[in-house]
Amino acid sequence: MIDLNRLYSERVRGAQPSAIREICKLIDAPNMRSLAGGWPDPAIFPNREVSQIVSDLLATQGDKVLQYGTTEGLFELRSELSRLAGEWDGIDCSPDQIMITHGSAQGMDLACRVFIDPGDVVMVGLPTYFGGSSTVSSYNGVNAGVPVNEKGLDVELLAARLRALSDEGKSIKGIYLVPNFQNPTGTTLPLERRERLLELAEQYNLIIFEDDPYGELRFEGTKLPPLMALDTSGRVIHMRSFSKIFSPGMRLAWVAGHADVVRKMTVAKQFADVATNTLSQYVLLEFIQRGFLEQGIARIKKHYHLKRDFILQKLEERFPKEVTWNHPAGGFFIFVTLPQDLNAMDLLTEALDHNVAFVAGAPFFVDGSGQNTLRLSYSQASKEDIEIAVASLGQLIKEQLA
Amino acid sequence: MIDLNRLYSERVRGAQPSAIREICKLIDAPNMRSLAGGWPDPAIFPNREVSQIVSDLLATQGDKVLQYGTTEGLFELRSELSRLAGEWDGIDCSPDQIMITHGSAQGMDLACRVFIDPGDVVMVGLPTYFGGSSTVSSYNGVNAGVPVNEKGLDVELLAARLRALSDEGKSIKGIYLVPNFQNPTGTTLPLERRERLLELAEQYNLIIFEDDPYGELRFEGTKLPPLMALDTSGRVIHMRSFSKIFSPGMRLAWVAGHADVVRKMTVAKQFADVATNTLSQYVLLEFIQRGFLEQGIARIKKHYHLKRDFILQKLEERFPKEVTWNHPAGGFFIFVTLPQDLNAMDLLTEALDHNVAFVAGAPFFVDGSGQNTLRLSYSQASKEDIEIAVASLGQLIKEQLA
Repeated sequence: MIDLNRLYSERVRGAQPSAIREICKLIDAPNMRSLAGGWPDPAIFPNREVSQIVSDLLATQGDKVLQYGTTEGLFELRSELSRLAGEWDGIDCSPDQIMITHGSAQGMDLACRVFIDPGDVVMVGLPTYFGGSSTVSSYNGVNAGVPVNEKGLDVELLAARLRALSDEGKSIKGIYLVPNFQNPTGTTLPLERRERLLELAEQYNLIIFEDDPYGELRFEGTKLPPLMALDTSGRVIHMRSFSKIFSPGMRLAWVAGHADVVRKMTVAKQFADVATNTLSQYVLLEFIQRGFLEQGIARIKKHYHLKRDFILQKLEERFPKEVTWNHPAGGFFIFVTLPQDLNAMDLLTEALDHNVAFVAGAPFFVDGSGQNTLRLSYSQASKEDIEIAVASLGQLIKEQLA
Repeated sequence: MIDLNRLYSERVRGAQPSAIREICKLIDAPNMRSLAGGWPDPAIFPNREVSQIVSDLLATQGDKVLQYGTTEGLFELRSELSRLAGEWDGIDCSPDQIMITHGSAQGMDLACRVFIDPGDVVMVGLPTYFGGSSTVSSYNGVNAGVPVNEKGLDVELLAARLRALSDEGKSIKGIYLVPNFQNPTGTTLPLERRERLLELAEQYNLIIFEDDPYGELRFEGTKLPPLMALDTSGRVIHMRSFSKIFSPGMRLAWVAGHADVVRKMTVAKQFADVATNTLSQYVLLEFIQRGFLEQGIARIKKHYHLKRDFILQKLEERFPKEVTWNHPAGGFFIFVTLPQDLNAMDLLTEALDHNVAFVAGAPFFVDGSGQNTLRLSYSQASKEDIEIAVASLGQLIKEQLA
């Protein structure tokens, strides 16, 4: 038989098996009351609208919508996104500064191809979304963690860490963050921190990888300008997704940035998968142009807002006072901190025995800390599941405290 | 402004601007009679079938078909493909040995992630499909060219080259080839060469990257077993595409291989784009199960067969006797060799002035040879375009010969 070990690339030989993937299999068991997955609720999927649009498109434009498209994505769609970026967020970017990607993860992957050499450092939150940090690692980049508090990434600790790493002579390439309703903490970076972050990026000549899949899902408070809208030097790679406001299965996302960066990411995509699904892009274009997107977002926000209120109420009722958690102003996630001596992985093992699932926080910490934290998602679970899962978890935590 | 040059990764800084991409812009001009693109003919797209299936799926299963899917792809689809691989090609592989990719290019990209370290050598044809060789280069792998003759890759020259490279102490990782109706030459590797290729792969412990997007489009002669069906040691990565027999815009392809290799490629895909478009996968599954795929292939083969016959007839009538070309038994391409002292790039410049386009052969040769070759594609052009383009090219070649 083949000797694969001699043949595998170094990056693959160095990869660790993922503990999360193994746990995911348990979480997927039937009858599980799960607050684990960060998936959207199918109740808000636009089935009828998509069906009607596909039918209309295939009746008249099958030759275009089933054919290959360009690597950067459909021009008309990029034009719409250029318009929306301006209207919604004050981002001034031309269609040439936008590319369509097959999901946001692809945006981050292409950005890493373009910027990350082995050993390059990217600053990330403690905790951070591990999709982003894992992609950095997959290019043999190094994630350097900076604490996140209730207002998101602590920019003064970031400044200190940048200074120290710079003094050590490290090649620091960028800062990765989810500025709005961060996965996993639900925190949003205030305006003054956004400005300070840009100052630091300027000082150290860094790329900012701005991953913003939840920005449209704000339930309360005032919308903040994306880092890209505040940036004046073209150093932000702004990644947006339609997974939460349209359909995750359609795998549509977009990246906006410096025209030269977008061009280089487009060349990288040429090798990666040539082009994004054409039919999906045309469907989304029609979905926007027929006004369904804006209507849909209003409906979706209301849907998740109610769910957030419900889980917060249940947490208040059922969790012991030794436990703390945040009140996210949008998005999908509640981040829970247990007393220091409790371990969320032990709690998860117990919980799974009771058919209740969540995600332990530790995998979100690149420094191995966060053992006493966990993430609860209210996006996909039914009210009944939320009620039962929270009650059960509250009980298990009380038992562990006793 | 940002100093991007300090930030770009080495692989990006080393990348050459693509001459082909610039020419593509000219080729896309309106009124061009183009034999350049290798795109499928929209006349054979299954518009009605896809429309009906999408409508049926969204009426009852929107919650599944618009939701995220697993990274390896829909289990039911992988099961169907496992069955078809056995029935059509004598490939014995379980669904666990199959993954769905977002186009065949993604299959090759993930395979390179898993196997190619900088400096690793992959053997390719002279000429070869540059999508494959470019992906190797994008991982800083090195393509080593071996002549292709009328029967495909010359396996005895391959043996000699492997011996030489091995003696030089090179790290040789694999052989990349399109065994059926190769892009660009249209040649098909005979059975005895397939067997010899496997022997050599065994001897040097190599991966075979078997890229087979045209295999189903055989117009005449007997189907040959894929390398994967002949392999006994799990060293073939078999890449198949639905772009030519279903829809290129749906971006659906699959990879079959050693279970451990497929698992590692799946982990790589997790970073690359998480999962392939769910709706497209369900549509394809239904398309297969309703019998449309097999019916469609019969119709598509007939369609391209007629086009091939037409272009061969026109070439016979219009091209001077100093020029030679192949008679492909399937696929999309005719490969033309001009007399040694003519240059296909010069001819292309002339042709574009006459609103006729083709692809010069040189970019398919990793050693810079093939200056007197060109590729003509009959897949997408109308009969009228084929007739006029061939007449015009014949005339221009005669002028250059004079």
